[in-house]
Amino acid sequence: MLTVFGDMGSGNCLKVKWTLDFLKRDYRWVEIDILKGESRTPEFLGISEGGQVPTVVLEDGRALAQSGAIILHLAEGSDLIPADPYDRARMLEWMFWEQNSHEPNVASARFRVVYLGWPEADIPASMIENGTKALARLEAAVGRSAFLVGDRVSLADVALVAYTRVIDGNGFRMKDWPNVAAWIGRVEAALGIV
Amino acid sequence: MLTVFGDMGSGNCLKVKWTLDFLKRDYRWVEIDILKGESRTPEFLGISEGGQVPTVVLEDGRALAQSGAIILHLAEGSDLIPADPYDRARMLEWMFWEQNSHEPNVASARFRVVYLGWPEADIPASMIENGTKALARLEAAVGRSAFLVGDRVSLADVALVAYTRVIDGNGFRMKDWPNVAAWIGRVEAALGIV
Repeated sequence: MLTVFGDMGSGNCLKVKWTLDFLKRDYRWVEIDILKGESRTPEFLGISEGGQVPTVVLEDGRALAQSGAIILHLAEGSDLIPADPYDRARMLEWMFWEQNSHEPNVASARFRVVYLGWPEADIPASMIENGTKALARLEAAVGRSAFLVGDRVSLADVALVAYTRVIDGNGFRMKDWPNVAAWIGRVEAALGIV
Repeated sequence: MLTVFGDMGSGNCLKVKWTLDFLKRDYRWVEIDILKGESRTPEFLGISEGGQVPTVVLEDGRALAQSGAIILHLAEGSDLIPADPYDRARMLEWMFWEQNSHEPNVASARFRVVYLGWPEADIPASMIENGTKALARLEAAVGRSAFLVGDRVSLADVALVAYTRVIDGNGFRMKDWPNVAAWIGRVEAALGIV
């Protein structure tokens, strides 16, 4: 059976969980507490070379890290990946953008508050500024179509919803982004996230 | 004909150029000077919603941004993408890791020196620290195999070589990473980069 080494509080890990649940795949979940150093033990580094969560160990024993790579591998051939090559490329565009422009700001701001216990006011200004730019781009995009790539949920929505749905109180306010709030509801319903 | 809006000094843009050249595709290159604000004009924002380089406009007029998404789209079905599903997933793992852990440190350090003219000593310490971690991981990986995914060049090498080959004097020293230096030579030869 597939094993996920993850942290239920991490959006990157939840992307893998939601994808597996949507695909109705069986898996074993091993919770890793990064603040307790559990991702830095020799044991875990023997499984995940970069000591990263999520890491999955596939049925054949081979490991794979990076949420984007994992969900693309797991969902290949499913409804979560558009069949049209251009739509597929647009999905990838959103997924890379998330890891480079959204997550380093929106998720990093939340990490400081939720994991490190910082007061919200201490989040670096550049993180708020760049996170706000990312949210503004998302707000425009999901005002134009039901999902990020057309009218069906895809891995682009899985990747972007993970940290966007938990912005409130972590440097950002959900009420500032009404299109985003409505899109989150659509994505949660389509994926069956509770 | 396909059009690339890019900056010849940007590793992300060069990834697209090298992929197109390797695939022997015809294209038009439009140089965009981001320091002169050319990626923020209403004209360019009409082409690239996020105002990003690289952006390509495909033969049918549709645009695509994010170097990772662009090269995956262009190289689909070619030798630059492993046919084996697990190898393909490992390639994606390196590509996402590059955008999330390598580029924000290694490329951002270089940006401050080469584009903004900062003295090398002013690069933030966290960027040097995290960039060094990324280079150490790369050094170990390319000591084990000729290329990042086995014995053939793939998009993983395209993605990682772009900013790694220009670290010298931009916060890092190539002589500290002999395996990386040898791998860069192999990738340049395999891709025909001059």
